[in-house]
Amino acid sequence: MPSRQEIITSRSNPLLKKLRQAVSRRSLTATGFALAESPHLLNEALRSGVEIERVFASERTAAAVAGRLPPHRRIPLHVVADKLFDRVATTSRSQGVLSLVKLPESEPGPVFAGLTLVLDGIQDPGNAGTIARSAEAFGASGIVFLKGSALPTNPKALRAAAGSLFRLPVLVGTEAGALPGLARQHGKTIFAAEARGGVPLFDAGISRDAAVVIGSETHGITPVILEAATPLAIPTKSVESLNAAAAAAVIMYECWRSGLRS
Amino acid sequence: MPSRQEIITSRSNPLLKKLRQAVSRRSLTATGFALAESPHLLNEALRSGVEIERVFASERTAAAVAGRLPPHRRIPLHVVADKLFDRVATTSRSQGVLSLVKLPESEPGPVFAGLTLVLDGIQDPGNAGTIARSAEAFGASGIVFLKGSALPTNPKALRAAAGSLFRLPVLVGTEAGALPGLARQHGKTIFAAEARGGVPLFDAGISRDAAVVIGSETHGITPVILEAATPLAIPTKSVESLNAAAAAAVIMYECWRSGLRS
Repeated sequence: MPSRQEIITSRSNPLLKKLRQAVSRRSLTATGFALAESPHLLNEALRSGVEIERVFASERTAAAVAGRLPPHRRIPLHVVADKLFDRVATTSRSQGVLSLVKLPESEPGPVFAGLTLVLDGIQDPGNAGTIARSAEAFGASGIVFLKGSALPTNPKALRAAAGSLFRLPVLVGTEAGALPGLARQHGKTIFAAEARGGVPLFDAGISRDAAVVIGSETHGITPVILEAATPLAIPTKSVESLNAAAAAAVIMYECWRSGLRS
Repeated sequence: MPSRQEIITSRSNPLLKKLRQAVSRRSLTATGFALAESPHLLNEALRSGVEIERVFASERTAAAVAGRLPPHRRIPLHVVADKLFDRVATTSRSQGVLSLVKLPESEPGPVFAGLTLVLDGIQDPGNAGTIARSAEAFGASGIVFLKGSALPTNPKALRAAAGSLFRLPVLVGTEAGALPGLARQHGKTIFAAEARGGVPLFDAGISRDAAVVIGSETHGITPVILEAATPLAIPTKSVESLNAAAAAAVIMYECWRSGLRS
């Protein structure tokens, strides 16, 4: 930590004020940066090469955080008095570090370059982030966050993604009605993961040419997408459905497994 | 709703006081009942036949809730003034209904009767509940919640399990050191799901004779269990690990899939 580092002790510090607004709205800062909470996410942001506007650290973590920031990247580090930091960081998971990061913007090309996941009404940011994490692990090319789903910039989504959203190509805010055309344009077959009925997952032959739509557990998949899709069922023992992120993981695993073995 | 139903309007109502304590501690009531939030969980509790001590409903939901309670079960329904209910129900997911339910107690026999999941340090109740939901879907026989994992009676676990914890045999509070002996006694092979290294999942031949241990993402699997276990790896494209509930779903799916096809 530079010895001349000033410690922010006032609630009315303008930088802190902007941060506080973003924290309380759980959304982007006015300059378009997302909140990444925890030292782990800062590490992931650093190794993924995403733009980091600035980092806030509590007094007790400041020295360790300063040691992690590569000097040549000249990332501003703001040290905040411990008590004040705790009042700003509403989550207990921040562990004394809040980073403002910019997620990479993607074009449809890379998103549709391989197995593509499409989130249709997945409102729980934890589920959305977990799906991103599984997508990277199983080699999916990208994720389409349809309008009405949680945003990839949501702090809870970033946390659940454990860094994958810093690297995975994503499209955000696509209208459901635009998906069939977009998929056709990129030579994709649309599969709709439905709790009941459909081609059994292990017979569906899901490959890199597929776009798999994961629907909301309460509302299912948007009709305009269903019309253009092959229904896909994960065979289960009981009639119970799976959690959306569990279903997505199983589908991506099956695609990955059968690709490895074929 | 019985027309003579009294509406609870006082914070100091003794029943409400006990409920409030359980809500604020996020744990069991003094009489050992767990909090099941939402009308969906009440339905699941009713159809699963678990003991329901009593149900609290806000004024606006009371009529609908009363219509769902089978008269012969004589489950007491307490109607709470809307504003007071909102102050008691700390979660936005209660949707005007809180039920006090007793989870079935299990013996090791049924838990180990088929594919068994073992949670080792899974502290996130949402993950624990999601694993229970997948376990029921893929026909696992039961779950061992080792000491140090979230409890199946945690309201968030109940919610994520979407009713599966009302039906699935579980053991709670087992010491890690007792697992190897318990598994041996029931003829089980222990597999430890490790992020790095191990037999690839699709070559491991996981069957009904397996007990699969899911470890904490931060602390891994307890050494005393690792010593007695075959390490198991989910092959992934990148070095990234999976969320614990996603990993568990994939493992159970693979067991279910290969069992169906063999």
